[in-house]
Amino acid sequence: MSLPDPAPTGAPADSDFDRGMRVARRAGDDTTYDAVLGTGWQIGAGINGGMLLATLGNALGHAFADDGHPDPVAMSAYYLSASRPGPAMLRTEVLRRGRSMSTGQVTLVQEQDGVEVERVRALATYGDLGGLPDDVRTTATPPEMPPPEQCVSSSMAPPDFMEQASLLERLDLRLDPACVGWALGEPSGRGLLQGWLRLADGRQPDPLMLLLAVDALPPVTFDLGMLGWTPTLELSVHLRARPAPGWLAVTHRTRNFAGGLLEEDAEVWDSAGRLVAQSRQLARAPR
Amino acid sequence: MSLPDPAPTGAPADSDFDRGMRVARRAGDDTTYDAVLGTGWQIGAGINGGMLLATLGNALGHAFADDGHPDPVAMSAYYLSASRPGPAMLRTEVLRRGRSMSTGQVTLVQEQDGVEVERVRALATYGDLGGLPDDVRTTATPPEMPPPEQCVSSSMAPPDFMEQASLLERLDLRLDPACVGWALGEPSGRGLLQGWLRLADGRQPDPLMLLLAVDALPPVTFDLGMLGWTPTLELSVHLRARPAPGWLAVTHRTRNFAGGLLEEDAEVWDSAGRLVAQSRQLARAPR
Repeated sequence: MSLPDPAPTGAPADSDFDRGMRVARRAGDDTTYDAVLGTGWQIGAGINGGMLLATLGNALGHAFADDGHPDPVAMSAYYLSASRPGPAMLRTEVLRRGRSMSTGQVTLVQEQDGVEVERVRALATYGDLGGLPDDVRTTATPPEMPPPEQCVSSSMAPPDFMEQASLLERLDLRLDPACVGWALGEPSGRGLLQGWLRLADGRQPDPLMLLLAVDALPPVTFDLGMLGWTPTLELSVHLRARPAPGWLAVTHRTRNFAGGLLEEDAEVWDSAGRLVAQSRQLARAPR
Repeated sequence: MSLPDPAPTGAPADSDFDRGMRVARRAGDDTTYDAVLGTGWQIGAGINGGMLLATLGNALGHAFADDGHPDPVAMSAYYLSASRPGPAMLRTEVLRRGRSMSTGQVTLVQEQDGVEVERVRALATYGDLGGLPDDVRTTATPPEMPPPEQCVSSSMAPPDFMEQASLLERLDLRLDPACVGWALGEPSGRGLLQGWLRLADGRQPDPLMLLLAVDALPPVTFDLGMLGWTPTLELSVHLRARPAPGWLAVTHRTRNFAGGLLEEDAEVWDSAGRLVAQSRQLARAPR
């Protein structure tokens, strides 16, 4: 008797993340997908915005897989209403099939009181991150922070907080101690929050997981002393390389807090020291 | 006999910019607009990406004007094919009308060899930039550069270059001398390009003009010694305040040049020292 080979990276064959973003193409309809948004990816009553991005990205990826453009390269999502756990439908539209990149649109809707309500719509360009030229002239530098074992694990969050953020149970998140003053009532005020991130069940990062990673940490407003909810209006992300296995280093920064709005810039660095994702979102400041 | 009052800012009643982004609603169709993309806003054979943004923004703004949401607040555009001077059609779609913000989609198409070709599609959220709360806690600082009269005017560009960039005739652009080494074959290599910008005919900045401003300077790759074309794949912009009259200070930066792609971050500061717009685009590096 021979057992199947384990996944090469030691990842579970069917991880929480893969289950959470799973979509099923409708029979006889090339463009529509069904999903069930899971209770395991909530933040408050809604589904985490990064998990929604990954689900959108997964659906649209099917449209371009046959073109040799499996990976999201740029994605811009506009959040229209709060997604809830339960059934959802995704509609995809191909805008352009190109030689090296293709562009499409995807929208996620849920039924609410018998009416179809749009939750989020995104435009995205897909390509092959593994097939890009080798040149790297990046001048950005990775974040400086202590190693994961010297950082503050999100598993130390109070139980009533974890209950509100079921998402955290599926993540292994270690925040830089220099950025967690807010938990003690002493936010740094710098507008910087950073830490190490990986999936709790050992599933290794890939481009879709990077879509989760750019919106998985607490909002940067915590570091400004505002612990309330910061709903995302718009989030755009660029994926620049397939991540190496292992920990991701994630930073959140803001520089322009004004008029009840702020930008949040995220960077994701992989274990090989490569800047693999950059995102910016416009969020509403906590009231 | 009484003459009409001049425009309060001294701007011409019908400026080159207003003519360039003009749209006309189709009779009997609330969602479709006609435009004529002007030869005066070209860069190479195509229409400047910022001018396209302003045209898209102008069309979609009509959809939300009656909701008290006249201003684009966030806009993400995916460029699908190069726009040409001549007739264009814009189709708008309202996704959500909210209390303080509304979100929509707009696409610009042109006929080419008898077939309709999509040039650019955008998602955008509109609001009232004049009605935002007064709090400003921005930590970003305005660019340091000499005053406009000590900067390098784009009118000094060689005639054959100006011919390729008719756009420059409508702009008064003064580049920081520290960022124009590329013109002498000595690029700084920092990935920074900055300067002062206003419309040549005296038309004052407003939110739509900021959409032009974030993509009107030469690409930041000039400062890396690459003088070729850098086509935009995606550009997202956040407008954060209505600009004060006068010069705009505009910066372009890049930090992650890799795999034949780069991000270009633009900031626009108004004459009152306010950070009024932030944009990021993903562009293809010159070959």
